[in-house]
Amino acid sequence: MASVLLAVFVNGKICKNPNMVSANDFFFPGLNKPGNTSNAQGSKVTPVNVNQLPGLNTLGISLVRIDYAPYGLNPPHTHPRATEVLVVVEGTLFVGFVTSNPADPNVKNKLFTKTLYPGDVFVFPEGLIHFQFNVGKTDAFVFAGLSSQNPGVITIANAVFGSDPPINLDVLTKAFQVEANVIKYLQAPFM
Amino acid sequence: MASVLLAVFVNGKICKNPNMVSANDFFFPGLNKPGNTSNAQGSKVTPVNVNQLPGLNTLGISLVRIDYAPYGLNPPHTHPRATEVLVVVEGTLFVGFVTSNPADPNVKNKLFTKTLYPGDVFVFPEGLIHFQFNVGKTDAFVFAGLSSQNPGVITIANAVFGSDPPINLDVLTKAFQVEANVIKYLQAPFM
Amino acid sequence: MASVLLAVFVNGKICKNPNMVSANDFFFPGLNKPGNTSNAQGSKVTPVNVNQLPGLNTLGISLVRIDYAPYGLNPPHTHPRATEVLVVVEGTLFVGFVTSNPADPNVKNKLFTKTLYPGDVFVFPEGLIHFQFNVGKTDAFVFAGLSSQNPGVITIANAVFGSDPPINLDVLTKAFQVEANVIKYLQAPFM
Amino acid sequence: MASVLLAVFVNGKICKNPNMVSANDFFFPGLNKPGNTSNAQGSKVTPVNVNQLPGLNTLGISLVRIDYAPYGLNPPHTHPRATEVLVVVEGTLFVGFVTSNPADPNVKNKLFTKTLYPGDVFVFPEGLIHFQFNVGKTDAFVFAGLSSQNPGVITIANAVFGSDPPINLDVLTKAFQVEANVIKYLQAPFM
Amino acid sequence: MASVLLAVFVNGKICKNPNMVSANDFFFPGLNKPGNTSNAQGSKVTPVNVNQLPGLNTLGISLVRIDYAPYGLNPPHTHPRATEVLVVVEGTLFVGFVTSNPADPNVKNKLFTKTLYPGDVFVFPEGLIHFQFNVGKTDAFVFAGLSSQNPGVITIANAVFGSDPPINLDVLTKAFQVEANVIKYLQAPFM
Amino acid sequence: MASVLLAVFVNGKICKNPNMVSANDFFFPGLNKPGNTSNAQGSKVTPVNVNQLPGLNTLGISLVRIDYAPYGLNPPHTHPRATEVLVVVEGTLFVGFVTSNPADPNVKNKLFTKTLYPGDVFVFPEGLIHFQFNVGKTDAFVFAGLSSQNPGVITIANAVFGSDPPINLDVLTKAFQVEANVIKYLQAPFM
Repeated sequence: MASVLLAVFVNGKICKNPNMVSANDFFFPGLNKPGNTSNAQGSKVTPVNVNQLPGLNTLGISLVRIDYAPYGLNPPHTHPRATEVLVVVEGTLFVGFVTSNPADPNVKNKLFTKTLYPGDVFVFPEGLIHFQFNVGKTDAFVFAGLSSQNPGVITIANAVFGSDPPINLDVLTKAFQVEANVIKYLQAPFM
Repeated sequence: MASVLLAVFVNGKICKNPNMVSANDFFFPGLNKPGNTSNAQGSKVTPVNVNQLPGLNTLGISLVRIDYAPYGLNPPHTHPRATEVLVVVEGTLFVGFVTSNPADPNVKNKLFTKTLYPGDVFVFPEGLIHFQFNVGKTDAFVFAGLSSQNPGVITIANAVFGSDPPINLDVLTKAFQVEANVIKYLQAPFM
Repeated sequence: MASVLLAVFVNGKICKNPNMVSANDFFFPGLNKPGNTSNAQGSKVTPVNVNQLPGLNTLGISLVRIDYAPYGLNPPHTHPRATEVLVVVEGTLFVGFVTSNPADPNVKNKLFTKTLYPGDVFVFPEGLIHFQFNVGKTDAFVFAGLSSQNPGVITIANAVFGSDPPINLDVLTKAFQVEANVIKYLQAPFM
Repeated sequence: MASVLLAVFVNGKICKNPNMVSANDFFFPGLNKPGNTSNAQGSKVTPVNVNQLPGLNTLGISLVRIDYAPYGLNPPHTHPRATEVLVVVEGTLFVGFVTSNPADPNVKNKLFTKTLYPGDVFVFPEGLIHFQFNVGKTDAFVFAGLSSQNPGVITIANAVFGSDPPINLDVLTKAFQVEANVIKYLQAPFM
Repeated sequence: MASVLLAVFVNGKICKNPNMVSANDFFFPGLNKPGNTSNAQGSKVTPVNVNQLPGLNTLGISLVRIDYAPYGLNPPHTHPRATEVLVVVEGTLFVGFVTSNPADPNVKNKLFTKTLYPGDVFVFPEGLIHFQFNVGKTDAFVFAGLSSQNPGVITIANAVFGSDPPINLDVLTKAFQVEANVIKYLQAPFM
Repeated sequence: MASVLLAVFVNGKICKNPNMVSANDFFFPGLNKPGNTSNAQGSKVTPVNVNQLPGLNTLGISLVRIDYAPYGLNPPHTHPRATEVLVVVEGTLFVGFVTSNPADPNVKNKLFTKTLYPGDVFVFPEGLIHFQFNVGKTDAFVFAGLSSQNPGVITIANAVFGSDPPINLDVLTKAFQVEANVIKYLQAPFM
């Protein structure tokens, strides 16, 4: 597989000897297995990006499977380096994303939402806050493509109220315009 | 949704008035329905790219569903502008891709193959010839992400033997090093 | 200015007749004036991107000035399409950003912080949540470069608790793992 | 040459010590010599890409010289990572490329052709199947630029009928809708 | 040619109706004719970029032919948006480029030079000042590929001493650290 | 900070162990100190790019501070890999840039100029020759963003008349259409 890997090597983006590359470097199994949704959110993301599948390196794309228990939520989050396109395989999902806005505090961010059924496709543009919520009575799951081999994920609640170390209390009280004890209450689930 | 669409508008890449954009511009239904595989190849690709889903514009990603009847084939083809990452939902597929090689007629293109089962993920790097073949006794289908909103597809047999107008007979006989009647025989299915 | 604008025009990215372009298309005044920080956050961002300065079109960069009253905060936010590099001109700022993490709920997002004084430069990588907080007793201000002509901004509190329309209450209570009345309390400042 | 190479080094794309770089790293000789066209196709591609000329690394461009004996053919092929722009130096060439098409089996790929004489320039867009055929009575040769430092080349006949190992016979008979013995006949020249 | 042009159209980068596109949109004739070198520099650049050949649009590459009379010079210049790779077809050229350097006035820019003969290839990295000088007794000419469909060209002497309107005399005397009459002398050939 | 650095590591673009990264890798102090303008040009550029601030790696942006004594000049120069957006903090600057033009010796490069006061923003598009001249009676300084982590700088006078080794005298006399002694006079300040 000289040329493909040579391309990769020439761009300084792989450590493996090109002559050692095999079909397995482009393969990852097990995305048929439902993720374990026994957690507070009732959802589970199973990523297949360059960390799991080295053959994706330099190719600018990755996949995820997301499972949702009934009433399960993939909570508001962003991918700092990728757009996501999702197809519903099973279940009913209420999904949405919030647009970015100029630095004008008087202009509100718009929320766009849709209820999705099996076979529905929806796009979450790069870097925007989005969520999926299982509003059906059965398990749901989706597959999604992401436009980066390493898209990253920032779950808003975890990053804002559960980072290590925590964000300064003064910052959070002012940002959310609430008392310190409300912030502490919000931080509790992530401590 | 000012900012997202403004971004798009600023880059000169959308005609729609940003104020008219709605959630439906990011939505496409129906990918739960099996494609009709009653054709010579026994397979059917259902694309969801910028031609079907305008909200993908400028975002560098798209999806497809591919269905395969038993013994159905997605014949050797390339995507001139995209890498493909596929996940098998149902069935058993024998897949492969052929590497590019330097302009040395003595160096052969390498074929990498794998038999895939439900949940298996496989990568076909940008521009390389690849195929999927249903080697199971039941229908199969996959979802795949592609790293372009307009990836294009070039089915080798169709492009080489079935273009409009046909490629010059002298070119094809020399390229494949066979007699003209063999080329005509190869062209017949696409005429 | 035929060539520069021709380049722009050839890429289909400007509507203006190239022969009509002048130096003023590359100019924007007034960034010496402090922004009005008489608001709940005590800070004000004054952007100079392609919306204010059309000559930035296609060039992949923009500027902002940010002013902070004493105890003023540029609250946690992301730029979905840009990295930010900031230089402190006046004042003392406590700044930080939170890293993205893989889809593992057991891995925490890391917070990186630094107290900055005049002349200090700090980088906020693309798409990550970050903030600046005036911890001095005087006004502060910075200039910052952003790696996009249309970087966008998503202020977390506003987007999550103040979007138009609001995000579904069930989504927010589950995401933050609190009672509905806490969410309503958090939404109040943005209604 | 600190800065150029530093740029390269900073991007992690070169192994050489920048202080050791010389003019020879940007130089490659011998493209005045006709390639040896004594082969089945009667043509010879002499590439000058990053494999021959390391100074091209990260710069996104390369060159080739192509020679054609009378009736010589550069057979249908694609460059998976590059557009090609060719100028005829000597001879008369019949050239063409086939467009990509959507996943609709009822839509045919279009063939665009032109007969070129010395001084004529022609473009083959990225990833599309194209060919050049010497229809004159004398030797011909061209120079061409390619929009990648490592464009790759996939000669269709070699990749489809001459890969190592060969593509499964069932795949090829179905793809080309012919009997197995025709495929074996087509494979013979490449074995 | 639906897909190729559709791709272009979808990206908002062409005005032509895709159904009207023909092979001629990818064709440009006449690069076999020597450029007229009867000018002060004794050289002539004949460009084939998107301004001459619309099919290059969005494809990131272009070509030039450059002719040199004996002792003819393609004077020091830069391409603000492209790397250049040149192949000598006829003649003997002394070529060179000057590296960029950090903002340290004590570090000198390095000059890299080479004498080129027919068949020699040389690379001029993006944005760097470079030149070619015919040091043979006969006419010379080259073909070169450039990594942009609209690379631009800035001839240093013309841009610095012959712009319209001229650069302020105070700027130039200080920049070159000479008397005003020397600058006026340098401006004279371009007035 | 696993994910950010992992992203960097995955792209092969950093040597540091991601676990060792700290806030200091995104920090650089001292841009409040005026640069020393006691030199022939009466100006000083203080860069903060990837060479000074490793956290900028792969992020496509950097900053500079430029100081100007009264009558100080940042002489005509280009950034081969970046657009520059500048904001005046103190002083009065006469600034300009020269457009690129097609390879037509009869078409002149256009000069665009503007006198800037504190708070004024101006754009210098990628690769174009530009300058800033302090036309006030007091010190001036600016901050500027550049659209590359390693933009490079080519000061025209230094690169053309002060390179190491010098550009051939025949090249320079012909390029500027003056006698050899004028060129030697121009080279003297840089020897």
